[in-house]
Amino acid sequence: MCEKVKVDDVQVRILARNDSAAAHNAEHFRERGVVCVNLMGSPGAGKTAVLEASARFDRGRMRIAAIAGDLATENDADRLKAAGIRATSINTGSACHLDAEIVHRTLHHFDLDGIDCLVIENIGNLVCPAVYDLGQAGNVVALSVTEGEDKPLKYPTMFAKADLVLLTKVDLLPHLGHVRIPAIMDSLARVMPRPNVIPFSAHSGAGVEEWLQWLEQRKLPKKMEAQLA
Amino acid sequence: MCEKVKVDDVQVRILARNDSAAAHNAEHFRERGVVCVNLMGSPGAGKTAVLEASARFDRGRMRIAAIAGDLATENDADRLKAAGIRATSINTGSACHLDAEIVHRTLHHFDLDGIDCLVIENIGNLVCPAVYDLGQAGNVVALSVTEGEDKPLKYPTMFAKADLVLLTKVDLLPHLGHVRIPAIMDSLARVMPRPNVIPFSAHSGAGVEEWLQWLEQRKLPKKMEAQLA
Repeated sequence: MCEKVKVDDVQVRILARNDSAAAHNAEHFRERGVVCVNLMGSPGAGKTAVLEASARFDRGRMRIAAIAGDLATENDADRLKAAGIRATSINTGSACHLDAEIVHRTLHHFDLDGIDCLVIENIGNLVCPAVYDLGQAGNVVALSVTEGEDKPLKYPTMFAKADLVLLTKVDLLPHLGHVRIPAIMDSLARVMPRPNVIPFSAHSGAGVEEWLQWLEQRKLPKKMEAQLA
Repeated sequence: MCEKVKVDDVQVRILARNDSAAAHNAEHFRERGVVCVNLMGSPGAGKTAVLEASARFDRGRMRIAAIAGDLATENDADRLKAAGIRATSINTGSACHLDAEIVHRTLHHFDLDGIDCLVIENIGNLVCPAVYDLGQAGNVVALSVTEGEDKPLKYPTMFAKADLVLLTKVDLLPHLGHVRIPAIMDSLARVMPRPNVIPFSAHSGAGVEEWLQWLEQRKLPKKMEAQLA
């Protein structure tokens, strides 16, 4: 459950504590040479399918691990493991977003050895996950074309904070008479400071190579590997 | 923004205040002979399209009005007005759900005269809207087949509290090879105390008649009309 708290100091205190834990997580990732991405989007936008497709097309270039956030079930982590991705779950019970402290606790028992990129698949929600820094290096939003053209305008904070939008399920466009990509692009351009969008289909593989290149460009040097080189 | 508040008394206080405002709203609806429905679902699940289709097929049997909740934009209220539905917006700014007090304030300047049914279209979110009573007589969840088979298991509270699930966009099923209705029904049966599901398509009109009948069965007598009869 989330609370629209009207007492400002409670809000400020919670976010300050979160930011402190997020800074700690960020240091944890930097030390290990792991680029961390916060993958957000509506329920059913295809976040897990993005990662499954990444594993299918990557062929070992990026060693990706994932933390899958959900209120309940291990379904996403199970799908990711089946796709060959090292993965674990966070079940929040009633919370509609992950926060830095719950990620911090998970990192204590999640092995990042040999990993280049950790994707934190956040709870399916276009609102609150955007507000809680987890210590990530980048924010990626999966936006499905089935959600219509105006979601960026209706959920502006999520898209204003996005470094990249994966416009998912584009293979379904021929069957969505009323949804046009230029209209979605126009909505995104109104709220993203620097619009950066990859049309994507886990089904056809469209955009997967471009997305993997985006990740590879953010790859960090490994201290140990750097010393051996 | 929402807060996962760890201080229990803050949570309890907020929900108690909400419940009191919700009871007030419920009385407001009863007095006016208006059945109020809280329509929830993910972003892009097709909540507004459900109401547009209702207006198209209803032909004056149920006089429906709507309050459309969104963080930003008047888009949904504008669509509803264009469909002939008396409608107004609530823009929450950063809050991920409506609460009873914000609905109460809106009711002060929203005319329910001659209305049989008020649909409150909540913020697109499968988590928090389920927790905040608005004074409604029933909860309806729009779940799109494009969201996959397991959303009821991942967002159990939302579906546990639903009186009816509208399984939307079923016209897209032939193009979603991996989504099967029996699997969605199975997920729903595991979390809904009394599963009640209508397969629905605003595009083809499938299920619209059944949904309108569900609403009609809940129609309340009008005091004034009852006196005249």
